[in-house]
Amino acid sequence: MHEEDKMAILERHDTGAVAHLRMNAPERLNALSDEMLAALQSAFDALKEDRSIRAVILSGAGKAFCAGHDLKQMTAARQAQDGGKAYFKDLFDRCTRMMLTIQELPQPVIARVHGIATAAGCQFVASCDLAIAAEGTKFGVNGVNIGLFCSTPMVALSRNIPRKQAFEMLTTGRFIDATRAEALGLINRAVPPEDLERETAELAETIASKLSAAVKIGKRAFYEQVQMPIEQAYAYAGEVMVENMLYRDTEEGIAAFIEKRDPEWQQ
Amino acid sequence: MHEEDKMAILERHDTGAVAHLRMNAPERLNALSDEMLAALQSAFDALKEDRSIRAVILSGAGKAFCAGHDLKQMTAARQAQDGGKAYFKDLFDRCTRMMLTIQELPQPVIARVHGIATAAGCQFVASCDLAIAAEGTKFGVNGVNIGLFCSTPMVALSRNIPRKQAFEMLTTGRFIDATRAEALGLINRAVPPEDLERETAELAETIASKLSAAVKIGKRAFYEQVQMPIEQAYAYAGEVMVENMLYRDTEEGIAAFIEKRDPEWQQ
Amino acid sequence: MHEEDKMAILERHDTGAVAHLRMNAPERLNALSDEMLAALQSAFDALKEDRSIRAVILSGAGKAFCAGHDLKQMTAARQAQDGGKAYFKDLFDRCTRMMLTIQELPQPVIARVHGIATAAGCQFVASCDLAIAAEGTKFGVNGVNIGLFCSTPMVALSRNIPRKQAFEMLTTGRFIDATRAEALGLINRAVPPEDLERETAELAETIASKLSAAVKIGKRAFYEQVQMPIEQAYAYAGEVMVENMLYRDTEEGIAAFIEKRDPEWQQ
Repeated sequence: MHEEDKMAILERHDTGAVAHLRMNAPERLNALSDEMLAALQSAFDALKEDRSIRAVILSGAGKAFCAGHDLKQMTAARQAQDGGKAYFKDLFDRCTRMMLTIQELPQPVIARVHGIATAAGCQFVASCDLAIAAEGTKFGVNGVNIGLFCSTPMVALSRNIPRKQAFEMLTTGRFIDATRAEALGLINRAVPPEDLERETAELAETIASKLSAAVKIGKRAFYEQVQMPIEQAYAYAGEVMVENMLYRDTEEGIAAFIEKRDPEWQQ
Repeated sequence: MHEEDKMAILERHDTGAVAHLRMNAPERLNALSDEMLAALQSAFDALKEDRSIRAVILSGAGKAFCAGHDLKQMTAARQAQDGGKAYFKDLFDRCTRMMLTIQELPQPVIARVHGIATAAGCQFVASCDLAIAAEGTKFGVNGVNIGLFCSTPMVALSRNIPRKQAFEMLTTGRFIDATRAEALGLINRAVPPEDLERETAELAETIASKLSAAVKIGKRAFYEQVQMPIEQAYAYAGEVMVENMLYRDTEEGIAAFIEKRDPEWQQ
Repeated sequence: MHEEDKMAILERHDTGAVAHLRMNAPERLNALSDEMLAALQSAFDALKEDRSIRAVILSGAGKAFCAGHDLKQMTAARQAQDGGKAYFKDLFDRCTRMMLTIQELPQPVIARVHGIATAAGCQFVASCDLAIAAEGTKFGVNGVNIGLFCSTPMVALSRNIPRKQAFEMLTTGRFIDATRAEALGLINRAVPPEDLERETAELAETIASKLSAAVKIGKRAFYEQVQMPIEQAYAYAGEVMVENMLYRDTEEGIAAFIEKRDPEWQQ
């Protein structure tokens, strides 16, 4: 795959310490095709090592954020001797890897959502660390409508919203709007469409202004500890705090706070 | 116990692919007596094998949905040599088995709640996959008021609503109304009493219209994955997706979607 | 440390069966200094054995509930040969122990919150079983603003509120107000400042009026079962129910309920 191809389907532009990834297959509602998944994986892998970037915004070109998997591509795969089984397994493995890479990135990733976010597109929102959506955006895990229960999207969804509400979305295939998504915890907030870009940029810049080493160690600890029994979570988080306290920049940050001045960070 | 006795205490009538179970001991506020528990277990066990049913509605006759355990029956059991210990152990085992059978059913179970749902009755609502309640319904885990902390109801409740709110209900014994129950996540929504039957039927029919094999595999996966670490949850859900993709009816559902026509399912 | 010193920094006064602990270092915004942590640990340890107390209220003197760790004391510790590493480790261990002691207390602990509750002060609120706050109170895990990610506060916070909202607070350092804290589940409710004392006292007295043995066994079970897979949680909670049923006072409570009279508890 050529770099140009990737750029065609996924655009990246950086503004200061904020990287902006934009899915760019509007005619397919930014479906997570093989090409899109590869481009996203490649982009996230590059960001993992990019110390100049401190926050990431993810958005979609056209009228939808993301409409999930590419059903035409999946259907074509049925022509294989095994009816597509090996392809499907590989596809869901690649999709899962991409979703989990977001958690593993040192930088927080903010989904900037508009239009629709359905099936694996809704999972994508749930998998980002943060999400802001335009009022009117529709969210759904609607695979059940065509006979394909959204089992992998459910993994991310059920870790974001209460159980009965997740179950209803999964078994009815019905959409919820951005206001409801905010109330349930799927997104951080719904904003008027005209404010979406500005609000997301402000959130990204706020995070980018923090000490990146602290955000990095904290983000990793967030997803680790949330899965642990509380005693183990505290033992682990305590170690993280000690390590964080010993950063030169943290010493400066605390000293500056005590002295009521701005910190001078090396970061 | 005769079939007629069971029918007396628990009625079942089916409308198309929707089974409706109605607890029918209104004079005891549909208490979960030995007889009621046996009738419910028996009804759920029968539904487990009933491929003609795709959704279940659970309701209660009279002025309450369910007021929990049968305290008179429990008190009578104290006459045994062991003060009732063996009976109590067996009772809670049977109650737990019935509650967990709901999760194990292939069909989604919707609680249609009115009046009051207290103690194990509130647990019953929390244990159903979905719940709609009439505005004005009161929910409580109020055993603490008589010196019996609602420890088993707590298991279901604390997996539905936030921690501090669950703790408050359990230690104060205070009731919350349906509107609050919706905000906390205990039910899917509160509706005007006159709309309760229709809204519940519509939800059941919506789910019954989906591909039952997909709902079945998805429901099982929902409760399995929610207890796993995320990586394991994804590995498991990915396998479920592959299996689901290979269903003949799912192939048809996806093909129909691509061709913009209604699917012709064998199901 | 003398008893007088402890009394200076942490006051306790009892009203009937309710103990009221008040942090009393207003000039340091009730920071969790070595002295404050020791006084709290000592007070909680004493309450653990105090069978006359059935509920605990925790509050702070002055304009803030608690502003977290004592940054000046932590900075001073950097003078040690190891740059403070051993001190920091010990500090977070002591803080964690104190927070976990709240869960281990037989009595429910209610945070009565006003002004600000930040960093470990916000963790303190999250760690209490219940919390009521004055409208206008600000909550934050704002260590990230000075380069110290609130990793230990995160353990308690992420077990109280939804994931994306916790992540936002942790990475932006922004405050939320009491109304938002209620909506997210961090506190039980926000009340007008003039009602804070009365509302908290009423909640404490309501709990204190219950059978203390039932509250004690239930509280312990609450935190145990919430970390277990559901089948194991039920097995455990079932045993707790049996034990609870065999209490003499519970027998009386149930009998009184059936006979429609007030129970006469020995407790």
